[in-house]
Amino acid sequence: MANEKKAVIVGAGLVGALWSVFLAKRGYTVDVYERRSDFRQAGYIGGRSINLALSERGWKAVEIAGIREKIEQVAIPMPGRMMHGLDSSLTYQPYGHEGQAIYSVSRGGLNIELVKIADEMENVRFHFNQACLGVDLENNTARFQDTRTGAEHAIESDLIFGTDGAFSPVRQSLQKLPRFNYSQQYIDYGYKELCIPANADGSHQMDTGALHIWPRGQFMLIALPNVDGSFTCTLFLAFDGEISFETLKKDEQVTAFFEKYFPDVIPLMPTFLEDFKQNPTSALHTVRCNPWHYRSKVLLIGDAAHAIVPFFGQGMNCGFEDCTILDSLMDKYEEHWPSIIEEFNANRPEDANAIADLALLNFIEMRDKVADPKFLLWKKVEKHLAEKFPNEFQSVYSMVSFSHVPYSQALAAVAQQEDLFHRMLQIKDLESNWTGPEVERVFREWLAG
Amino acid sequence: MANEKKAVIVGAGLVGALWSVFLAKRGYTVDVYERRSDFRQAGYIGGRSINLALSERGWKAVEIAGIREKIEQVAIPMPGRMMHGLDSSLTYQPYGHEGQAIYSVSRGGLNIELVKIADEMENVRFHFNQACLGVDLENNTARFQDTRTGAEHAIESDLIFGTDGAFSPVRQSLQKLPRFNYSQQYIDYGYKELCIPANADGSHQMDTGALHIWPRGQFMLIALPNVDGSFTCTLFLAFDGEISFETLKKDEQVTAFFEKYFPDVIPLMPTFLEDFKQNPTSALHTVRCNPWHYRSKVLLIGDAAHAIVPFFGQGMNCGFEDCTILDSLMDKYEEHWPSIIEEFNANRPEDANAIADLALLNFIEMRDKVADPKFLLWKKVEKHLAEKFPNEFQSVYSMVSFSHVPYSQALAAVAQQEDLFHRMLQIKDLESNWTGPEVERVFREWLAG
Repeated sequence: MANEKKAVIVGAGLVGALWSVFLAKRGYTVDVYERRSDFRQAGYIGGRSINLALSERGWKAVEIAGIREKIEQVAIPMPGRMMHGLDSSLTYQPYGHEGQAIYSVSRGGLNIELVKIADEMENVRFHFNQACLGVDLENNTARFQDTRTGAEHAIESDLIFGTDGAFSPVRQSLQKLPRFNYSQQYIDYGYKELCIPANADGSHQMDTGALHIWPRGQFMLIALPNVDGSFTCTLFLAFDGEISFETLKKDEQVTAFFEKYFPDVIPLMPTFLEDFKQNPTSALHTVRCNPWHYRSKVLLIGDAAHAIVPFFGQGMNCGFEDCTILDSLMDKYEEHWPSIIEEFNANRPEDANAIADLALLNFIEMRDKVADPKFLLWKKVEKHLAEKFPNEFQSVYSMVSFSHVPYSQALAAVAQQEDLFHRMLQIKDLESNWTGPEVERVFREWLAG
Repeated sequence: MANEKKAVIVGAGLVGALWSVFLAKRGYTVDVYERRSDFRQAGYIGGRSINLALSERGWKAVEIAGIREKIEQVAIPMPGRMMHGLDSSLTYQPYGHEGQAIYSVSRGGLNIELVKIADEMENVRFHFNQACLGVDLENNTARFQDTRTGAEHAIESDLIFGTDGAFSPVRQSLQKLPRFNYSQQYIDYGYKELCIPANADGSHQMDTGALHIWPRGQFMLIALPNVDGSFTCTLFLAFDGEISFETLKKDEQVTAFFEKYFPDVIPLMPTFLEDFKQNPTSALHTVRCNPWHYRSKVLLIGDAAHAIVPFFGQGMNCGFEDCTILDSLMDKYEEHWPSIIEEFNANRPEDANAIADLALLNFIEMRDKVADPKFLLWKKVEKHLAEKFPNEFQSVYSMVSFSHVPYSQALAAVAQQEDLFHRMLQIKDLESNWTGPEVERVFREWLAG
């Protein structure tokens, strides 16, 4: 039996590296194949990264894997968002109640940490520079090409996990199966990485206790803190149209754009023009597919199964939650993989679809609504309701980021809570009465409805 | 200039063959490459066909191509649907008004006819046994492999049309482009071709003036007449579940299924058991993608751009309408392809998405609703309204099948007309008053709303 506890993982990204720890802890011998060269030595290729926001679902997985303490060292708490107005005004809005936060983590830093942790386990082996060419489904064989020598080789395994990301070669093999449902949908917006460097003394130039947002209606800039004193910034902007990457080709255009929309950022970002020109403009898309598996031999998890846009900060958290759920199914079915995979594929895609939808919705919230006083007032009411009626009310944001409620349940709550919001807006002088009895009355009425 | 009027068409199916006629009539030299061997000699591979229903949009294209008369010889008018009850009762319901019909055409017969017509034109050349391996987009080059010799060759052309169907290799090349949106969604139902042969004297065993339906709620059988006296039948049934292809594995199961649900069919279909076992069970899916083109060099039309399920009988009609629309854009822009393709891709995908949705909706209508007396009553009211208020009312079915109204407009009318249906159902004794003043009053009220 011990002999049979073997698995191949394709992709040593965040989910692949974490999943190798889960399997290794259960006694599996795990071989992880990764296209890139070993980023512990080579460094993580930068220039197109968006910082990650680790939240409750992610922490739970990290904790089960037994590596919470190590990850805490590279994570910076962000208990709220800080909105930067056009007039350089600052507005702070907490994400949850006292003590709750999401955590800024650099993708490269976290990935390196996870690979280090996994590689210290004696039953995990990493194989870098191995580009997956596909999986021969009938023969449980993954094919790889060494990116340095060009040599091809094949690995047979009864358990192959595709954690090879949004453009997954493993998924492409599944796609050739009859009746495979698949969708890839791009949004009309791209993103570009920028940087706010540390002060000369290594300290941060802005408050680290927040995710900074410059909401500008149809576009936005965000900044998340790093442990080295810098902030990783991301500009989200339409590819085409009046204000778009298409119309920011010349130096003067880029400078004028920053001067007009982000005047307070320019002094913090001395190399914004160089970075803008040098860093690529990347696209954002959603991937949905079904089934996620071939029999009980091959299973997609993480972005390979369900890539989403980054606006709810849930891509990694959702992938990590895949690991948590599979782990609990391994208990439930005593590692009987046909049952584990059947139940996983019966339930999990609905939640992955839900967070995909929520992430698309949250883009509008981040780039536009957070600048609306009504929205900020609603956030205050929400917080008040959640504190006063903790058993009866939880905001959608909180369900997603601070709970383990299925994403599909959070998605279902969106329309209900929007209805509550509109009812609350009918209250006279809500601005000064947002903890008053009228708020409670409307809430009770809504709850009963 | 004459030298430049050259085009390559990948796929000699219905749309590819028709489109070659359109282009040849305008003086283009057209090379059509087809994976299959020449079906004029080899015959059309049968066993997985669903008869086609040529309707107004298809006829228009056929007429512009100048081949209406030839196609009329292989088309049988079906002015209505004939519902076969479980008790062998027959219910007839006309599709439109007097003189309107959809036309049963066998796919193989029509395809052969179209290739013959095109091949008689001196500037069209067909190349059979040429499997497309993909298109090199940057170099406007389509690559083919001869299926007999294995030899590969490449053809360069400034204009390459992908009419290579739902599994289009040309589309697969477009799919590698950044920001390509793509979706393939299978329904849970499969289909199987069956046959009602001609009588010994060559006559039909059933009325040829109708599309025959055996609606059974969750599944259905249909039959469309052929010119040789036979009917091509199609059984649509779930792949899995209580009553499904999965549960019809043994002879006794198949026989019992037919005896229970299609008792009146058995005497007409002497080889139903053999056909059921011999013919494959095929899957049905919808393909949506965007863009349909690469610059002004490569363009997808027909199923390659928008494969749909067959329940509205519009797959071919929609592909033929692509040809009509492109033809009118060739007039509008004097054959300036960048403008033609830009406008086509700006407008046509919305209509293709609409007919995809309408086709999915119509499955429920065909397999279930047509057996509901309320639905049949509504169809009578619809017909009455369309006759009495021809400028104010047109049924969705009629918009789709008997008009050139954009499909997106027909889709928008679905919810509106459902609302009218529910209002009409409130009328007392509608069964006996469906031409009465109350119907007119409700209609006027709805119209004003």
